[in-house]
Amino acid sequence: MQYPEPIARLIDSYTKLPGIGIKSATRLAIHTMEMAEQDVTGFAQALISVKRDLHFCSICGNFTETDPCAICADPDRDQSTIIVVEEVKDLMAIENAGEYRGLYHVLHGVLSPLNGKGPDDINIDTLVKRLQSHDEIEEIIVATNANAEGEATAMYLSRLLKPAGIRVSRLATGLSVGSDIDYADQITLIKAVEGRTLL
Amino acid sequence: MQYPEPIARLIDSYTKLPGIGIKSATRLAIHTMEMAEQDVTGFAQALISVKRDLHFCSICGNFTETDPCAICADPDRDQSTIIVVEEVKDLMAIENAGEYRGLYHVLHGVLSPLNGKGPDDINIDTLVKRLQSHDEIEEIIVATNANAEGEATAMYLSRLLKPAGIRVSRLATGLSVGSDIDYADQITLIKAVEGRTLL
Repeated sequence: MQYPEPIARLIDSYTKLPGIGIKSATRLAIHTMEMAEQDVTGFAQALISVKRDLHFCSICGNFTETDPCAICADPDRDQSTIIVVEEVKDLMAIENAGEYRGLYHVLHGVLSPLNGKGPDDINIDTLVKRLQSHDEIEEIIVATNANAEGEATAMYLSRLLKPAGIRVSRLATGLSVGSDIDYADQITLIKAVEGRTLL
Repeated sequence: MQYPEPIARLIDSYTKLPGIGIKSATRLAIHTMEMAEQDVTGFAQALISVKRDLHFCSICGNFTETDPCAICADPDRDQSTIIVVEEVKDLMAIENAGEYRGLYHVLHGVLSPLNGKGPDDINIDTLVKRLQSHDEIEEIIVATNANAEGEATAMYLSRLLKPAGIRVSRLATGLSVGSDIDYADQITLIKAVEGRTLL
């Protein structure tokens, strides 16, 4: 059917979100019309606010209201270790796990020659400058995704930074905790055998 | 982790949508931050607009910018038949099927004694007035959901309207088109046998 213009526009906006097709978007748009006025207004204000009030931390590239971000500004965090991630969502995933107490660096991308993305296109130069001006940094943990591009980026960083005497490590690949061996894919199994740890 | 306030607010707003939990909401919020400014602004404006610019059609209860709505105002539609639905989304589903050319009436709810919803709480009185003032209406097709409350509402409407000489019908229950008999639930199968049609 021809939806009234305001509904059509909202459906269109919802379909721009990841994983939401035209059917879900229509359902969400209709639900929105039936929501309380203040919830919808709050939603709209929250959308505007994330674009207006959030910026990249000039040190690590995290999203933040203040500069530097709360993590970089926290003197209680371990200043000797930096986890390098591709995107802010990866930083958030590691923070949510709640164990790591060091710092971060967000590349905002990954090396991808096929897509024309080289070292100058991602946030590597700021990482190098950060290492040059902070002697206390001892280890870089590369937490790029466990795929070809993530591996390539990890290798590049390793070759770039190791000569400067910095320890560069990579997240372990292997079985997910709680998973069944017969459900693991072949490459993960091979990596898990290669990376076996002594008991 | 402690998300910056603007992100936390947006995550909270996303979780108010149906079928979106805290994990999906976080993913959507982070994606939103990375969207183009104009897309986010457009999204916010579309949200405001559906609440500000859309109203209920005073005749049928559909969402509309104009009053009466485009369907009620269309003289080419069959004025003798009204499909009664629970919610606007049901009207939209039938419109999207593209075959029906009559009118609609949206109850905005369903009879539900357990939840304290009686005939006065849903849009039944306007339907009765509509029938009183429009002699050309011959048939009411009750398209409430195929569950206990939907059935009860259909029965109520049938008893209310039949004495006035109006034909009241109900959508057929049976197998979904394209479905396998061995996957159908028992009650649907019983209904499908009861409602069998002669070849």
